[in-house]
Amino acid sequence: MLTLVTGGARSGKSRHAEALLADAPRVLYIATSQILDDEMAARVRHHRDGRPAHWRTAERWRQLDALIAAEGDPDEAVLLECITTMVTNLLFAFGGESDPQTWDFAALERAVDDEIDRLIAACRRCPARVVLVTNEVGMGIVPENRLARHFRDIAGRVNQRLATAADEVWLVVSGIGVKIK
Amino acid sequence: MLTLVTGGARSGKSRHAEALLADAPRVLYIATSQILDDEMAARVRHHRDGRPAHWRTAERWRQLDALIAAEGDPDEAVLLECITTMVTNLLFAFGGESDPQTWDFAALERAVDDEIDRLIAACRRCPARVVLVTNEVGMGIVPENRLARHFRDIAGRVNQRLATAADEVWLVVSGIGVKIK
Amino acid sequence: MLTLVTGGARSGKSRHAEALLADAPRVLYIATSQILDDEMAARVRHHRDGRPAHWRTAERWRQLDALIAAEGDPDEAVLLECITTMVTNLLFAFGGESDPQTWDFAALERAVDDEIDRLIAACRRCPARVVLVTNEVGMGIVPENRLARHFRDIAGRVNQRLATAADEVWLVVSGIGVKIK
Repeated sequence: MLTLVTGGARSGKSRHAEALLADAPRVLYIATSQILDDEMAARVRHHRDGRPAHWRTAERWRQLDALIAAEGDPDEAVLLECITTMVTNLLFAFGGESDPQTWDFAALERAVDDEIDRLIAACRRCPARVVLVTNEVGMGIVPENRLARHFRDIAGRVNQRLATAADEVWLVVSGIGVKIK
Repeated sequence: MLTLVTGGARSGKSRHAEALLADAPRVLYIATSQILDDEMAARVRHHRDGRPAHWRTAERWRQLDALIAAEGDPDEAVLLECITTMVTNLLFAFGGESDPQTWDFAALERAVDDEIDRLIAACRRCPARVVLVTNEVGMGIVPENRLARHFRDIAGRVNQRLATAADEVWLVVSGIGVKIK
Repeated sequence: MLTLVTGGARSGKSRHAEALLADAPRVLYIATSQILDDEMAARVRHHRDGRPAHWRTAERWRQLDALIAAEGDPDEAVLLECITTMVTNLLFAFGGESDPQTWDFAALERAVDDEIDRLIAACRRCPARVVLVTNEVGMGIVPENRLARHFRDIAGRVNQRLATAADEVWLVVSGIGVKIK
């Protein structure tokens, strides 16, 4: 079963996702963050400290399909957090060294879509429960920055595709999970 | 019947609105965008390519009441996309050539409200189903830019007035339509 | 009974909160805004003009527990607006004169949490109905500004704590109240 949990920053979506897996005997936690500075390190520590000690953690944001496909144990649930960070990392990996303001976002989006297609296919084949956490990023004012504008378009469409593929979708608002599918 | 479909950027609100009209024998699609640059042209093309070929398209963002009032055919539904762009265009039209940072936003909002009043009245008189698509723009951090702050206030109040007038209101999140009225 | 009303800017959350108290014989309205410029003064006037004339108003954003604890009259409801502004004011009060970009946000968050703990305890002891209005601020793009990033984290976690403590929680979208708890 594939579950998508979405919500704003600090909406409690991590905690909601973890609560969905409270009864899972084993959990593989896939952390997609890259730790690039102290602020990010603090965020990652904050999240890690809140997770059960017996969970396994994999830090990875590419070829997640291979990682998930390796989960043959139907008792081990998978929690991936988060899609938005994964998309950011993919954009920078595919975009390379050039100035992000000059990137060909249509091509980048196709490359991101390929990764997402493979992720969805792996989640569907996985005998274990898979919970994906993502972010709502499109309910503010249009960003002035071209990269931010394209990012929110790409992230929004990725969320649509995952929600379409998911068996259930939760929107978390102020820590309250609202089941919308 | 008047329907309002709201949601964030790339939330799938266009697709949801189109699905609501899947059975309409004829649809007048009112596109409120002004094409000012290549990025906008690409966005407009992207949307147009996704629409059924037999829909009629009108590109217009003022005096929409006259356009909608002309729809005497109860079998032809109207889909207007989107209110937020219409409000942006109205602000720039009413604000004129002067620096937006110096605009009298209270006066501009009254002018926008007059247009919205006429739009609502026309939708109510229209024998056909009317679907209006709008954007959630107020769930981020307060923008530093004065124009952006006032825009989000005005857009937010316009959304409230349309939702009050509407027979049904949908919030679209990650492509999932949630009926909230 | 404790109620939390959340929503974006100009989503109609004030009006929804006021409607919840339409039958209250007496209402103490706690305004947490500090009036620092003309734009803010106009916003405060706009809200004040929309409130019933017989409501009492207290302008305060610290030690709200003392104010609420003094409400011994079960017929006088309390409406506090808004939490987000209160959090902003607390951050600037605790942060002091130093450059906000250098603040120790972990320490500031603990100080804010202490105030929120006392507020929650006072609301729970209060015999009257208490309605708290707050803002969704985390559904846009990650802000570039460090202060804004930390603010939205702190405000998001405050919202989670209040929603957990509340008996009912409403999300207001385009003026439509959606009860999520």
